[in-house]
Amino acid sequence: MKFSTKDLIDGIRSGNKRLIGKAITLVESKKAEHRLQAEELLKMIMPFTGKSIRIGITGVPGAGKSTFIENFGRLAITHNKKVAVLAIDPSSAINKGSILGDKTRMEELAKEENAFIRPSPSSGFLGGVANTTFETMMICEAAGYDYILIETVGVGQSEVLVADITDVFLFLKIIGGGDELQGIKRGIMEMVDIIFINKVEESNLQKAKNTKLELKRALDFIPPKEKGWKVPILLGSALHNKGLEGIYDTIDEFIDLKKNIGSFENVRIQQAEKRFEYWVQEYILAMMKKSDTVEEAYLQHKKNASAMVSNPSTEAKLFVERFLSNENDKG
Amino acid sequence: MKFSTKDLIDGIRSGNKRLIGKAITLVESKKAEHRLQAEELLKMIMPFTGKSIRIGITGVPGAGKSTFIENFGRLAITHNKKVAVLAIDPSSAINKGSILGDKTRMEELAKEENAFIRPSPSSGFLGGVANTTFETMMICEAAGYDYILIETVGVGQSEVLVADITDVFLFLKIIGGGDELQGIKRGIMEMVDIIFINKVEESNLQKAKNTKLELKRALDFIPPKEKGWKVPILLGSALHNKGLEGIYDTIDEFIDLKKNIGSFENVRIQQAEKRFEYWVQEYILAMMKKSDTVEEAYLQHKKNASAMVSNPSTEAKLFVERFLSNENDKG
Repeated sequence: MKFSTKDLIDGIRSGNKRLIGKAITLVESKKAEHRLQAEELLKMIMPFTGKSIRIGITGVPGAGKSTFIENFGRLAITHNKKVAVLAIDPSSAINKGSILGDKTRMEELAKEENAFIRPSPSSGFLGGVANTTFETMMICEAAGYDYILIETVGVGQSEVLVADITDVFLFLKIIGGGDELQGIKRGIMEMVDIIFINKVEESNLQKAKNTKLELKRALDFIPPKEKGWKVPILLGSALHNKGLEGIYDTIDEFIDLKKNIGSFENVRIQQAEKRFEYWVQEYILAMMKKSDTVEEAYLQHKKNASAMVSNPSTEAKLFVERFLSNENDKG
Repeated sequence: MKFSTKDLIDGIRSGNKRLIGKAITLVESKKAEHRLQAEELLKMIMPFTGKSIRIGITGVPGAGKSTFIENFGRLAITHNKKVAVLAIDPSSAINKGSILGDKTRMEELAKEENAFIRPSPSSGFLGGVANTTFETMMICEAAGYDYILIETVGVGQSEVLVADITDVFLFLKIIGGGDELQGIKRGIMEMVDIIFINKVEESNLQKAKNTKLELKRALDFIPPKEKGWKVPILLGSALHNKGLEGIYDTIDEFIDLKKNIGSFENVRIQQAEKRFEYWVQEYILAMMKKSDTVEEAYLQHKKNASAMVSNPSTEAKLFVERFLSNENDKG
């Protein structure tokens, strides 16, 4: 990278969007030398992170996520907030084009001085499901963005990844019964903090109310994610800027509640711990994959396990002993 | 162990309940020498496993799980099936006494020649959440049991553990709205294959029907676990043997469907693979914990990550490199 770590940090801290973009490209890189510089950079900006409100936004394709983010983002800017928009898209091949790939979808927001939009990262990292959205978020926080909006589609593992790094999880619902939800990942209802029924007009208001009732009933069967918080279901139209103030205030209320009961900070600590554990596995996996012998052995033992040639735990033990003794041989 | 592996295998194959019990005690043991013998035993019985129908049963305390298992087990025996009853209880401290601890709760079933009841294992294995219920199940299968009923309570991680080793997941529901479900682990509705509303009498039939309707609505919001299977909700009373034949037939139907679409075998293969991966982590963890230095380093890096002293992925990388180089030093 032609920019020094100091250049990048100065750029981030002064809100230079071009250098913010360069820094993000750096942390997204898989090259070993880039990783080293990225870690140096991240370590130095760490004191300036953690101040934003991190918001995950999900919904099926067609729920109006882009329009929502565009107009909600602009609303936040009128409240003197700086807004960054990111995307988690571990399976970009599947969702091609449906997620921020097309920057022009948020034309108005993109024009705003106080908005920063980053299209989807290219792919997963180290071959696993890890990705660098968390690191990108750190950079945006150090650049002074107050709201980080992370868009995701309702498929694959993206929701879990978003829930694991955000403070609020927002679900955009279109009007209708349960059938439309077939495309949504199992478990989505349990991650949700706030629901917004979008595209509500005069003509479909009754249907929207029915959908709200159905959602409410479904939520009755799900224990609360946060004590003392009954998931609010708001109606509106992102396109016509209806209901967005309500969402803005509800997010505030929710964050206040989390801060009051101490869960805001606690959840962030847990998220960081989880992320650490996650990366430990990722790096162990990566080191294992470096060696063809080890990977071959892993696959063979796994095959034995799945064919029930012997007990899975026996195969695991055989493999781990072999793997660690391989490592020893090298030492 | 005073019994040779051959003695134990002969005992298992001839259905000697005392020796089946001894074999289970062996696989539950944490002692290294017992582990060795256990793995030898498991490897040898492997060809005789896999023939049973593996049924997970959950529900809040008070849902009538013991009564259900007792009378359902006896019903299966009248169909010329041999029935084994196990329990998953990774958090025995919490559920003390609520789960098979008290053998007398299934007095009638326990008397049956064709039933085998094994109380809860003492605790988790190797300090993790792994447990030996899967291995116990192997032993019961090799002993010719046709139905393995695995009881669990709706807390902690026990449901996931059961879902990961069974073919059918049965949820016992008591009459009433969502509130009673507060004690049930999040995500339970998504693991369920069949629901039985228990304790239905003439006097509460209408309430039971309402509960069924509510459950149906809740299920509408959950994508099907198995294609072509709409989770049936049956009403009955386990105590008065009402509705149990329906459950028995429904399980048969469900297994037939799974076999027809190929998912029965596929899911079992996936389960074995998952179990292998799970144990790989478990053994790596165990090996790491053997060394105080490594464990100390792990905790320190994790602490740095959660305090956001540096980035979690950086801390993970530092730790993995340090850990593996420690291993090398020893070699």
